[in-house]
Formats: sequence, structure tokens, C-alpha cells
Amino acid sequence: MNGNRFGRLFQVTTYGESHGDAMGVTVSGCPAGLELDEEDVQKELDRRKPGQSMITTSRGEPDAVVINSGTQDGYTTGTPIGMVIENKDARSGKYEPYVTAPRPSHGDFTYSAKFGTRNWGGGGRSSARETVNWVAAGAVAGKILEAEGVQVKAHVNQIGDIEAPPVTFEEMLEHTEENEVRCAHPETADRMRDRIDEYQTEGDSIGGSIYFETRGVPRGLGAPRFDSFSARLGQAMMSIPATTAFEFGLGREAREWTGKDRNEDWTFDEEGDPTPVGNKHGGIQGGITTGQPVFGEVTWHAPTSIPKEQTTVDWETGEEKDIQVVGRHDPVLPPRAVPVVEAMLNLTIVDFMLLGGHVNPDRMDGQVGEYDTDYHPRSPDNQ
Amino acid sequence: MNGNRFGRLFQVTTYGESHGDAMGVTVSGCPAGLELDEEDVQKELDRRKPGQSMITTSRGEPDAVVINSGTQDGYTTGTPIGMVIENKDARSGKYEPYVTAPRPSHGDFTYSAKFGTRNWGGGGRSSARETVNWVAAGAVAGKILEAEGVQVKAHVNQIGDIEAPPVTFEEMLEHTEENEVRCAHPETADRMRDRIDEYQTEGDSIGGSIYFETRGVPRGLGAPRFDSFSARLGQAMMSIPATTAFEFGLGREAREWTGKDRNEDWTFDEEGDPTPVGNKHGGIQGGITTGQPVFGEVTWHAPTSIPKEQTTVDWETGEEKDIQVVGRHDPVLPPRAVPVVEAMLNLTIVDFMLLGGHVNPDRMDGQVGEYDTDYHPRSPDNQ
Amino acid sequence: MNGNRFGRLFQVTTYGESHGDAMGVTVSGCPAGLELDEEDVQKELDRRKPGQSMITTSRGEPDAVVINSGTQDGYTTGTPIGMVIENKDARSGKYEPYVTAPRPSHGDFTYSAKFGTRNWGGGGRSSARETVNWVAAGAVAGKILEAEGVQVKAHVNQIGDIEAPPVTFEEMLEHTEENEVRCAHPETADRMRDRIDEYQTEGDSIGGSIYFETRGVPRGLGAPRFDSFSARLGQAMMSIPATTAFEFGLGREAREWTGKDRNEDWTFDEEGDPTPVGNKHGGIQGGITTGQPVFGEVTWHAPTSIPKEQTTVDWETGEEKDIQVVGRHDPVLPPRAVPVVEAMLNLTIVDFMLLGGHVNPDRMDGQVGEYDTDYHPRSPDNQ
Amino acid sequence: MNGNRFGRLFQVTTYGESHGDAMGVTVSGCPAGLELDEEDVQKELDRRKPGQSMITTSRGEPDAVVINSGTQDGYTTGTPIGMVIENKDARSGKYEPYVTAPRPSHGDFTYSAKFGTRNWGGGGRSSARETVNWVAAGAVAGKILEAEGVQVKAHVNQIGDIEAPPVTFEEMLEHTEENEVRCAHPETADRMRDRIDEYQTEGDSIGGSIYFETRGVPRGLGAPRFDSFSARLGQAMMSIPATTAFEFGLGREAREWTGKDRNEDWTFDEEGDPTPVGNKHGGIQGGITTGQPVFGEVTWHAPTSIPKEQTTVDWETGEEKDIQVVGRHDPVLPPRAVPVVEAMLNLTIVDFMLLGGHVNPDRMDGQVGEYDTDYHPRSPDNQ
Repeated sequence: MNGNRFGRLFQVTTYGESHGDAMGVTVSGCPAGLELDEEDVQKELDRRKPGQSMITTSRGEPDAVVINSGTQDGYTTGTPIGMVIENKDARSGKYEPYVTAPRPSHGDFTYSAKFGTRNWGGGGRSSARETVNWVAAGAVAGKILEAEGVQVKAHVNQIGDIEAPPVTFEEMLEHTEENEVRCAHPETADRMRDRIDEYQTEGDSIGGSIYFETRGVPRGLGAPRFDSFSARLGQAMMSIPATTAFEFGLGREAREWTGKDRNEDWTFDEEGDPTPVGNKHGGIQGGITTGQPVFGEVTWHAPTSIPKEQTTVDWETGEEKDIQVVGRHDPVLPPRAVPVVEAMLNLTIVDFMLLGGHVNPDRMDGQVGEYDTDYHPRSPDNQ
Repeated sequence: MNGNRFGRLFQVTTYGESHGDAMGVTVSGCPAGLELDEEDVQKELDRRKPGQSMITTSRGEPDAVVINSGTQDGYTTGTPIGMVIENKDARSGKYEPYVTAPRPSHGDFTYSAKFGTRNWGGGGRSSARETVNWVAAGAVAGKILEAEGVQVKAHVNQIGDIEAPPVTFEEMLEHTEENEVRCAHPETADRMRDRIDEYQTEGDSIGGSIYFETRGVPRGLGAPRFDSFSARLGQAMMSIPATTAFEFGLGREAREWTGKDRNEDWTFDEEGDPTPVGNKHGGIQGGITTGQPVFGEVTWHAPTSIPKEQTTVDWETGEEKDIQVVGRHDPVLPPRAVPVVEAMLNLTIVDFMLLGGHVNPDRMDGQVGEYDTDYHPRSPDNQ
Repeated sequence: MNGNRFGRLFQVTTYGESHGDAMGVTVSGCPAGLELDEEDVQKELDRRKPGQSMITTSRGEPDAVVINSGTQDGYTTGTPIGMVIENKDARSGKYEPYVTAPRPSHGDFTYSAKFGTRNWGGGGRSSARETVNWVAAGAVAGKILEAEGVQVKAHVNQIGDIEAPPVTFEEMLEHTEENEVRCAHPETADRMRDRIDEYQTEGDSIGGSIYFETRGVPRGLGAPRFDSFSARLGQAMMSIPATTAFEFGLGREAREWTGKDRNEDWTFDEEGDPTPVGNKHGGIQGGITTGQPVFGEVTWHAPTSIPKEQTTVDWETGEEKDIQVVGRHDPVLPPRAVPVVEAMLNLTIVDFMLLGGHVNPDRMDGQVGEYDTDYHPRSPDNQ
Repeated sequence: MNGNRFGRLFQVTTYGESHGDAMGVTVSGCPAGLELDEEDVQKELDRRKPGQSMITTSRGEPDAVVINSGTQDGYTTGTPIGMVIENKDARSGKYEPYVTAPRPSHGDFTYSAKFGTRNWGGGGRSSARETVNWVAAGAVAGKILEAEGVQVKAHVNQIGDIEAPPVTFEEMLEHTEENEVRCAHPETADRMRDRIDEYQTEGDSIGGSIYFETRGVPRGLGAPRFDSFSARLGQAMMSIPATTAFEFGLGREAREWTGKDRNEDWTFDEEGDPTPVGNKHGGIQGGITTGQPVFGEVTWHAPTSIPKEQTTVDWETGEEKDIQVVGRHDPVLPPRAVPVVEAMLNLTIVDFMLLGGHVNPDRMDGQVGEYDTDYHPRSPDNQ
């Protein structure tokens, strides 16, 4: 409704502006008994953190998370988890000339038009800094997926016109974090890196895309139609700043496939369950997961903050003026967006798993002072 | 949550299966005083209706809507609008052999896996027949948009490898409904028609896509990030059966654009408001509408019901068996999906307009027995 | 939001006006495999039906329910259940003089002030006829509770100044439906009946209250604080037309009790679980159910439709005028509200049970064409 | 759903345990341009703060609020307002013996039964310390009401068997905060104070109630039936810890009133609008506000933390044991609950006002760097 909430049973609520005092996220609906400490969250934040390499903004944020509630003795208690990440390296001064003159292709004007005002330092609420909250919440969800044997991985599969060849899930796990572009195909990663350098040198920026894939997502997730797995995953991905396309399975290419070529016969898997003979369906049929890997792509447009001289208008003075967005900015978005995509996948999957009763409290570890978990309603022994 | 609800303030709730007794939809949150009768809804249902041409299923549904509540003397009263559309021409018999043997690439298995059962006649709840409810609700939303001067139009821009050249909004308005393919470029429509015939003759089906565009969507709609205009529109479009991709603005192509080429300077419009010099941003910046046309594309995979001989497995007998999906089916989905896309656009836009206070009760017409509308809280004279 | 939805996972959506064509209710989130036919719903509607006795309105509504979707071969399928109840005996004519002159203490003025119009026949949407939808939905929820061994019962414990002595749950089950007042204390029922006759003869009406109690509600329901069991039950009861008070446990009397007298020690129950030695807490501690019976009271003001001569004003003419509300009306509300209270209890409890994972799909019966329910995620064998 | 969210458009999300590191609350949906700083919130927190007098717990919490986001230069920006209140004086040690032995009539057992664990220090999440978040959020809502000319006031009208005579709204405004009992009738306040002292001396505690009243609540708020003003206010009040009854208007007494005596004729007010001749309806008719003052009562049971020797059982050892709840506790709840009731009234009213379009952005003050507010959609000049 107000844009700062995601999830139905696993609920995430966020606040914070790029140059405000702190970012904050509340996670409610997390099952009790999950092992969780700040380090679990911090290691994901560190992956998203600015200043990791030459191709990311040099803003020096430690992004240190503090968990204010919801855990005890290292385990979740089932009550809301409140986390705060302070903003340490905000320098708003250089944004001042543009308070009433919107930066080209940013959200400056739309925020002002919507609210009659805006927090202008660093883009305020419209900044991708907001995603630090998502990664923090996604880290909690990721711990649940880990306990349930679900895996999620994303990598950068295209930057500008440089496209990586298809890679296996294992290659994604192995290579993605090895290079600063986060492309699981090392050779392509090098080429992407060089191309990004070129754009950066020219004072320009470039678009790109991310491919994601899962393992172990249970069948039966998704509530067609408005809450189909694909609809909610689409919402999740399109809520990431600067995204312009969401695809799953054959995606945009599906328009050129015939039914005969795309349809998949059924066979039995090793446990005797029906399973499609292929996965051109991308793990989702009729809006519900089949148990096959879910895969797809998300596209980002080029970062809009570029040092090129551009023109804007000042709505106070009524005059045109030149604008050059200096600041400290990323020349390309997907590399830092990889942990964000994974976080949104985590959040989407866990939310559906909770809705479908797929999270087993007995797989959560023991707790201090626990009331005998035999009595937990969802425990197999108590139904 | 359960998949049958859409919208926050303009709320749509649906029920119905392909071969059930009736489809039903409840619209709540519609402003009072809107002129509305069954004919307004019927004319949209007629556009989506099966049996319109050779390239659509021959199922003979009149799709006659009955409005059970929410209007009086031809005007809405602000209370829930209940609509029912009876199913008249359901023939479930031929589905019987496949109750425990899923049709290839349908939702049969996933529904059964999710619920432990399913309504199997005609695909039951997973059938695109559900969209009759959406078109009915969208017709109500469309009346509000009409009163507010907002226009929405979609047309089929690609079938298989046949792609229509770009068309203007005016061409879309003029030509889309002239041909059975619903492509606004008449010459391409002919080629598409021929190609569809070929596939149909071969017992095959084909994918395709729809381009949509708007006029008059007010600036300021969308609540970033999770409820950004693009995120909610993405959810809306990806909830349509058989969709595999959603794009807006440059969409998937954005990955190849540089910041310099994509960024748009600001200028003043004729009313003295800031406006971008172009619309490569697709009417949305920072997740919020700019006032420029919103445009994008949605992709459908080929219909999965094809008369080709395929293989499935029966989970009761544990045996493989041949399957040939006879029934009465569409060889391609986008032509009949055009009114569905328009309906989902209507619903998404109206919902955001209500959230943002953009619907003016004074633009709704007079009513019988009305309490002096001067007192309506949102009336300009009473704030 | 718009007032026609109740429940989070077990979701009820309603429409309909007193003199509209039909009432309608959609139930989504009902587990699959529940045995359900129209007769199950009809028998509850018959309990609420008008015209049952001298002390209820003589409006002759058959209240025949039709189930349009969501079941197959007598079992639910997990998809939305759409139900319609036609209005047959509406006579709007006599309301016409009061279209612009509100009846004393009805919702006529507030509806008109809110919407700038209203459906005036029979009170339109503000009529308690709406509760026919709730009873229909509550009947579905009641079937789940029956499968889970949860019992719910209500009876009229006070009419005017005539108060019934405390009765046992067994007496409630045995005697409530024996008399038209629905008071489980037969002797008091007689006195109530006589008193109601007196008021009715005088052209007057009278208030009253209902006591409710449960058996078998599992411990652990309720999500403090805003969704505590008491908060949501309070919302449920206060949404019933004409209610003015909600109490549970000691209710209003609690203000006069000391901590020493009210506090309850802990002991072990026969299964070795902690249990309070008494139930002055009304089955709820810290906003969560303890497993003890939940009990409480709800109060109704006197029906506002009385044949007494009263004064109103006409906002069109600006003049005062006399008004006498003839129609066919109940002289007292609680007797017919007993099934409504039970329905709202059913809906509240089932919703919380689903949220807490307390509904066991294995306790739902078999289905035609089911996919092996061993695979249901919530099944004890599959976690 | 998870119990830590309140409101539809004005949304409050909370976290925190009694002895956790900090309490936190996120407010989203607050209109932009509202003057707001930490002092505005702090002065309300100071009213609720422990340690204010002999009859409140001596826990020494400064309850200092920090606003992390959502404001700029002293005005709200329309984006989420994140607030944190650190816990400074938590002493968990004395709770340790009772980790597996529930305190009588607390939420210890129910929390453990629900989650299989709990944060046991100071009652953890079940502690009324949570209400510090509500008062912080309510302070923000209160600023909007102030701008809109709506007033809200509560006072303690009964403690044990000592009942205050009716007081006027003006007396409530003048006298409530003068005494530590927060009873607007000074003489009764003295008697209440003495009685509380007696109970406290005896190591006992006592129940009580609060009367609330409003001025200026616009007509037309409330969405019958499930979101009627009374249903949502009921939920709000019953979510306050230790409440057992909610009443509005004649409340529980309504059961003894006849229709003739309770019904109110209509007349015209000075602006020529229809208005009831009295307010026995408590400002709500048909679930919607009439424009008359809304008033009612809420009841609290006696605090359960009393130094009396009581018995509990330890579910680890399986043995009975004595328990004496020492800690630092309030002997009576209503005096400190007055600001909590006012906060929940504020939140409920503002939420409904936003839903009904009753909050005028033009009444919010100017902002730094604002986009010309003439363009705000809800501005009278722009509809």
C-alpha cells in the first residue's frame, strides 16, 4: 500500500533514506527456533556493500547491522525481528543545487510530484540504498531456506551487448562471487569488466541483466491467479530500483515457440511422482511451482547518475539549467544487485512456503527455555 | 494470499471454475455515483467471449453478466458490486480420462499437488475462463477512467516470429478491434492470421505478445518500492494465465542502452510543469508515474492444449499413457487476451488513483436520493 | 478496508443489499477435501431466517443458498467457494417517503453522508440482512471445526432487565434451540418471551445480550498485540449490526476484581501440560488462547425500527416531518443473532487455526481424483 | 496477521521486547508536510513513562525516542517514519527461575505454547512495554488530528468499586493530567489514589476502566460491516494488554433500553445538516460516524504481577513450585493506559480519515524544496 511492506506471512517492513540517520527493517512472521545472529545478516550485507571495487560507488558505508529484537541466546523467538543499519558516509551538500531541479531520469520529480516534497539528499527514499534493508531481511529468510534444503543463486548474465553463455547451477555457485562483476562465466566476466571500464572512463553507464535459478523449491507454491508464484515473483523483481523487465522460463522468447516444441510430456521421478521431462516451463505451471528449478531473468537500465552535462529545469525559478551528477555512483547496477535479487527470491519463496505449510518447525534447532516443541501445532507428531 | 483478490482500495474478489455453475466477481471500493449498468460490463465481456472467430475456441458461452448488488437506478452506491456470469456450455466428459493423468504443461499436476485434489473439468480453476471475472471488474474500473480522462489500449504486436512495426496510440484505437487477431497494423494482422491458420492446421499452437499503452495517467501514482507502479503492474500482468515476461519502457532492451543514450533532460510542458523530453522511461521514474504514457509488453507462451499425441503418466495406475488434448481450444492466446490486459491495466491504474486521491467524486454523475454531495469529504469545496 | 472482507487466511468477501437482487459471499482459503454441500449451509441459514416466529420479522425469505464454485462431488477443492442467496420478498415501496429523510437511529444518514447516496430499500447495505452471508460462510468454517473437534455455542442471556442465570455448555447445546428466544434457561426464556410480547404490543423494542462459549479451541491461537485473539474476536463481534459492547472472561466486571482474586495458579492437566486452575481469564492470556473455553458476551441495542411516531428532517425540503417506521421488523435482535455470533466465532477461530497450522488436511475426507494426499506439505508424514 | 501491524493507510509496524535492546516502530502513510520533531513524540512518551509516581512501576526508563527517517527540516516527507526507543533499565535476572514455570495469569505459557520458546525477560514481547511504540506512533497521528481540528481525550473513570461521576469533555481536558490516577474528577481521584495505596500495601492489585471521548471526528468514517468504526475501534482497544471489555455509546447498558427511549429524532444543525437530537448512539450509527462525539469505555483486569505467594508448575521438572512475582510493577493499569487509549484512538481515527479522504494536504504546512503543492491531487484547486 505504502510501498514499504513485502510478504504476507513472512512480512518485511522498511524505512530509511539514502542520507538519513539510519535504515531499518522489521521482519515478522519468522518461525521461532531459527539460529540467527548479526553475523548471519552481516555477511550478506557485506556482499551488497558499496566500495567493494572500482566498479561500485566509493561511498564508504560499513553497513553494520544491529538486531534490536526477536532473538534470544542466538535463536529467533517468533516475535518481530527489528534491525537497524546506520548511515555513516552521507554527504548531502552536492545535491543542494538540485532540490528544485530534478536530475534526469531519476525519481526526483516523481517523488516531489507525489508528495509535494522529498528528501533530496542522495535521492532520499528513492535511492537503491533502501535495498540494504531487503538484503538484511533476505538473510533471515535465507537461513530458513538453508534449513529446508532450498538453494537460490543469481549471477550477471549480460552487460550491454556482452552476454554470458549459459552456465550450470554449480558454476553459478562456484564462480559468481569470484569476480567483481559477479558473472559466473569467468572469461565473460573479464570482458564485461573491461567494457564497464570503458563506459566509466567515458563518463557513461550501461544496462545489464541477472539470471537467477533455484534448487529444492517444493512443488505446490503459488496461489493462482493474482498470487501465482510468477505474479508475486514478478512484483518482487520489478520492485528493485531500475528494473525494466522480468521473465521466467523461456521468458520473452516464448512468443516464438510452438506448443509442440514447448510442451513437456510427463514421466515419473525416482520417488514415483509425476515430473515433466524438461524444464522449459521454468519451474512454474498454472502459476504453481512444479518442483523443478525456477529460473528467469531481470533487466536493469543503465544508472542515471552520470557525469555527462545534461539539462534540467528549476520549478522554483522556472528556468532551464545545466546539471552534472557528480556524486559517487555505480557505472552499472547488476553486479551489486545480485544479492538483492537473491534476497527477493528468498523472501518470496519463504513467504509462499509458510503459506503452504512447508516450513517445518522441527527443523529449527533447539532453544533455551523452550516449551516442549512436541506441542507445536505443525509438528508431525501433533496433527 | 489465496489468489482470488486483486487491488488495495479498488478490490476485486473472484470465484469460479471452467466447468462450474458460474463465475463470480465482487468489486468493492468503487466510488458512488458512477453510471453503471449491465450493458457497460457486457460489451467488454463480448470482446473476450469465446467463439468469436475461427482462431478462438468454439465453446459457445453467452457470458451474460448479472449485477446482483451495488447499483441503484443505474448508478453505483459505493457498496460492493456483485456480478455473476453463468457457465452454459461446459462439456466435462472428455476430461475424465485425465483426472489422474496430467495434461502436458497444464496446471493439472500442480493444482493436484497443491490441494490434493482439483476440479478437473476444463482445467477447473486453472482455466483462463477465470479472466471473464477480470474483464467484468475491469469494465467497472474503465468507467471511472473514462470519467477521469484516462485511456488504455492494447494490441497484439507479435505472433511467433511475425512482429508488427510500431504503431501510434491512435492506430491502436482505430485498428485493433477491426481484425480477429487484434493487431493494430492491418497488414501484419493478415500475416499473423495466416500463420495462426498454419499452426492450427498442423495441430499446433504458437506464442505471442501484446503491447499496451496509456494516455492521461496522472503523475504521482505508485508507492516505491514494493508497491511501485511497475511492481504492481508486473504482478497484474504476470497473473494472467500463460504469461512468461513483463516489460515496460525499453524493457529487455534496456540492458543494451547506455546512460547517456537513455537519460532524458527535463523541460517545461505547456502548463509550466517539468516534463522529460522523451519517454524512453515508459511513463515511470523511481517507480512512480511521470504523467507520460505508460507502455510495455507482455508475452504469452503457446497454448498447451494441442491435438498432438503426447505422453503422460497416471499417478493412480503408475503407468504411462498417451494423451491427445482434443477439446475446443485457442491456437494462440494474445488475441483474446487483449481485453484482459486492458482490464488489468484499468484495475491497476484505478487502484493507484484511489490510493493517491486522484478520483474526483464530483466527476461522478448525479444520483437518486443523494445526500448533498457538497459534503463529500473529497469534494474540492469541502477541504 | 471497504468493510466487506473478513479473515486473513480464511477469507470471506460479501455483497448485497436488503432489497437487492441477491446476497453473495465468496469464501477463499478453505482447505481442500472438506465434505460440503448446500444442505450443510442451508441448515444454518434456516436458523437465522426471518419469519420463524412471532418475535421475528414476517418477511418471507426462503434464503435458499446456491453454491456456484469451489466444490466437486461433495468435497471442497481448495479454490474459492462462491455462494448466492436470492432476495425474494423485498418490498421497497414503503421506504420511498424516507429517501431524503433519515429514519431515527438507523444508518440512513451516515450512509448518505459517506457515499453521497445510498440504496434506501429496506436499509440497503446497512441492513442486518447482510449477516445471511456471514452465516453461510460460518457454516463452511463450522464444518472444519467439527472435523477438528472444536465446538461453539451461543445463547441469549439477557433481554431488557431479564437476565438468565449461568448455564452450562451442555445446557446451551440442549436448550438454546428449543425456544424462539434462544435462551438456554427454559424458564427465563418464557419470561423473556412474555416481556418481548409486551414491548411489541406497545409498539416498542428492547435490547439484549448473548453469551457465547467454546470447547476444544487449541492453545496458541492469537497474535498479540494487534491480532490478539481478543482483538480480532472483538472486531468480529463489534461488526455485527447494532452491537454496543464486547466482553470476554470477567469482561466489564473485571474492573472490580483484585489481582489476588482473579489470578489463577498453574497445575498440570491429565496430559501433563500446564493448565490454569480456573478460567476467570476466559480462555485467553496475553492475547493468546490457553486451551480453556473461550467465553464472553455481546450486547445489542434495541431495534431502531419501531412503529412509534417520531420526527425526522428532510434534507431536500429542509423541513421536519413525522415518521413511523412500519415495515416488518424484529422487536429484539439477539434471538436471531445467535447463529450470527456463532458464525463469527467459527470464522475467527478457523482463521486463527489456519494461521497457526492447526488444521490437519488429513482429517479432511477423501476426494475424487485426488493426487495422493501423502504429498500434502502439512501432512504429518511429509514434514 | 503477525500481530505487530495496525492500520490500513496509516500503517504502524512495531517490534521489541521488555528487556530487549530497543523498541521500534515504523509509521508509513503519514502525509507529507506535517511539522514533526522528536519533541512532539517525546512529550507523549513522557506521559506513559514508568516511574512517574508511587502508583507506577519504578523501572527507570528515559524512553528517549530517536527518529531515524521520514522527516526533513522538521517536516514529514511522506515516506516511512522509523523510530527507535532504547531499553535502558532492564533487569532480567529475577525472571530466570520462571523460564519454564509460568507466572500466574501472564502470557508466559501461551507464548511458549505458541512459539515453542519465548523471550522471558520482563515478559518479553507480551509486556505492556510494547505500548511505548503505540504512543510514539499515536503522537504522529495526533499531530494530524490537531491540524484537522479533531480532539481526543481519555480519563480513568473507575478503579475497583470507586466510580467517577460523569464529567464534561472540558473537565477531562482540564483535570485528567493533574493527578497521578488520571481521573478528571479530582475528588474521586483522591479516593482512587487511597484505594490503590491500600491494595498496594496489601501486596495486591486492582482492575479499572477508562472513559474516552472525541470532538470533531468527521461524519462518514467507518466501512460497515467488518470495518465499521466500532469494529475497528473495538479491535484497537481490545489489543491493549489486559483489556477485557470494550463499549461505546450506551455500551453494556444498552441491553436494558427500549427502542423508544434510545431512538433519537433528527433535527438540523446550525449549518443546515441533519443531526440527531441526542448522542445516546455514541457518535456511530450503522457503523459509521455521525459527526457527534464518539465515546465509550474500556476495562482492564487487575495487574497479574503481585507479590502474593502463588503456585505454578515447571514443565521441565514436572513439579509444582511456589512463585512470588517481585519485580517492579504497577498496582493498577488504567492510569498509565490513558495515553495508550488516546494513541489507539488517534491511530484509528486518522486511518479512517485517510481512507475517506478527510485529511487535507493543504492544511499541512510548507516544506523545504517542495514541488508546488498546487499539484497535489487532493488539493481543492486540482480536482
